[in-house]
Amino acid sequence: MATINDIAAKLGVSKSTVSKGLNNATDISDEMRKRILETAVELGYVNKRLQKKEKKLCILVENMDFDTPNKFGHDIILGFKQMAEPEGWVVDIVPITIDFQKLTPYGVFMMQNGYQASFILGLSLLDPWMKEFRSCKIPTVLYDNTVKENPNIASVGCDSEEGFELAVKHLASLGHKKIGLISGPLESYILKARYNAYLNALYKFGLEVNEDYIGLGYYVSESTKEYIPKLLSHGVTAILFSHDVRAISAITECDDRNIRIPEDVSIVGFDDLPMTAYTTPPLTTIKQDRTALGKCGFYALSCLLNKVAIGSILLRATLIVRDSTGPAPPVS
Amino acid sequence: MATINDIAAKLGVSKSTVSKGLNNATDISDEMRKRILETAVELGYVNKRLQKKEKKLCILVENMDFDTPNKFGHDIILGFKQMAEPEGWVVDIVPITIDFQKLTPYGVFMMQNGYQASFILGLSLLDPWMKEFRSCKIPTVLYDNTVKENPNIASVGCDSEEGFELAVKHLASLGHKKIGLISGPLESYILKARYNAYLNALYKFGLEVNEDYIGLGYYVSESTKEYIPKLLSHGVTAILFSHDVRAISAITECDDRNIRIPEDVSIVGFDDLPMTAYTTPPLTTIKQDRTALGKCGFYALSCLLNKVAIGSILLRATLIVRDSTGPAPPVS
Repeated sequence: MATINDIAAKLGVSKSTVSKGLNNATDISDEMRKRILETAVELGYVNKRLQKKEKKLCILVENMDFDTPNKFGHDIILGFKQMAEPEGWVVDIVPITIDFQKLTPYGVFMMQNGYQASFILGLSLLDPWMKEFRSCKIPTVLYDNTVKENPNIASVGCDSEEGFELAVKHLASLGHKKIGLISGPLESYILKARYNAYLNALYKFGLEVNEDYIGLGYYVSESTKEYIPKLLSHGVTAILFSHDVRAISAITECDDRNIRIPEDVSIVGFDDLPMTAYTTPPLTTIKQDRTALGKCGFYALSCLLNKVAIGSILLRATLIVRDSTGPAPPVS
Repeated sequence: MATINDIAAKLGVSKSTVSKGLNNATDISDEMRKRILETAVELGYVNKRLQKKEKKLCILVENMDFDTPNKFGHDIILGFKQMAEPEGWVVDIVPITIDFQKLTPYGVFMMQNGYQASFILGLSLLDPWMKEFRSCKIPTVLYDNTVKENPNIASVGCDSEEGFELAVKHLASLGHKKIGLISGPLESYILKARYNAYLNALYKFGLEVNEDYIGLGYYVSESTKEYIPKLLSHGVTAILFSHDVRAISAITECDDRNIRIPEDVSIVGFDDLPMTAYTTPPLTTIKQDRTALGKCGFYALSCLLNKVAIGSILLRATLIVRDSTGPAPPVS
């Protein structure tokens, strides 16, 4: 477990400054206090004095890796804790499965463990707990998912509409006219949202909507293998992917088939995973600021705990242009 | 100007407790501190110690009354100040006009007055400053309005989709099949959003969409006078209004014409203005929690000031059922 010394060493300040930051003393700057508190969370420092209050939250995670900084969930959890722990909350991270949900109702799980509220990452619309969320009384924030008409539930996410609109605008400016989509099946809120965002963006820029340009498949590499040649055979010159992992599998697939990126086909991911800067070629993608998502998750939860019926927070999407997109190839 | 005594008297606590609350002492409860700080803002108490830092924000208001608690803007401003002032911000309220915007660029106005960020209420899409917002660098939050692709601008509002969906569900359950809309012209973001929400809700509940059921007019009472008889002549039995003020003018108009509410026509407003509980009959309407909107406005601004590119916060809408809605009249 990290100590005050570790925080002081990392920031290059004295132990007494760190102590002031941790105990909300007023004779250091707000900026320094913020850095100290955020570093304390990052290093896993536990403030015993605050912990005694027993204010407990949990982050429930399914279908998402988070254990190392290069994994998608890592920074979301970090951002959440950077907001929550300085306010005296103990935050537990609990991986869950569908079987676990079937065995234990959400409300029971929360009460048994003394959690006052939760932030939930990675549930699909088909998950057993989704039904319980329609009427549950526990303040609950869902990442990339939504529940209607329950004032105890809020959503946070990144603006898919804005993201795909930026991507299609970029591709249209490069002369692409037939733009495809490869995505997972439409069983999750976010995949539905991205699917609609893709259609709306094509419509907005006057591009052809055609079901032959779309491939939806559950298994990442299998569906890439199937849909890349299919879409190209229909004249598609650029493909949007619902997630970076799918775009990255497409890079491998194109390499195997001697399809050049971006000369033969441009590809665009979604998420900006750390590794996308290091693929060959580096991936053009839509960035979600994951630390900010975590911070907003905590804010939404604070609102619900204070009876402010927030429904959703959307972060802006930004397009990170790298080398996987280029001018449309001449029509053959 | 309010004093510590005033706050103590209002809350029924001692002066020293109030002083502790105002100065962030740790030997009172969080709950008590919150009540003290919120009451201080409500009574207009100025904390000189905090004000010295000169952290200045402004709320810019156009087309919206806010001077007394029964006015629409009052609680939005109150909620914003309840969040901002305890953090040491000085908040100025500045009414603006289109002519003022033409004379003074937004950036110049903000710099001349030393404002670090602003919360803006009531601008339409046609307002001169809207162009400047596309590229401005000043953290700016718009209520019920939106600007694309600028990470320095965020939006807060109430979920129109959810609101009209609740209203149409309620009316459909009462047997209404022809539901109309009376609204202002589609020159503002929010009126466009409500128009689309109306269409989507009809579509969702399988009800007829017909342009003869829709009346869009700039002047409130004139357009009510024109559209109420027109919509009724087409068999409409229930009407949604884009704002309570229009619904209230419809109550007067129906009274003048001996049209009974809800026996002949059901009407639903949007906003839940204080007076809607006291009209004859009391108005069924969609509630926006205005204090919460103000609080979210400040949070969105805090995010932007901390370089978290929040795009939008939507509050949940709730349907307040009063006596202006009832079973659909039998088809004549």
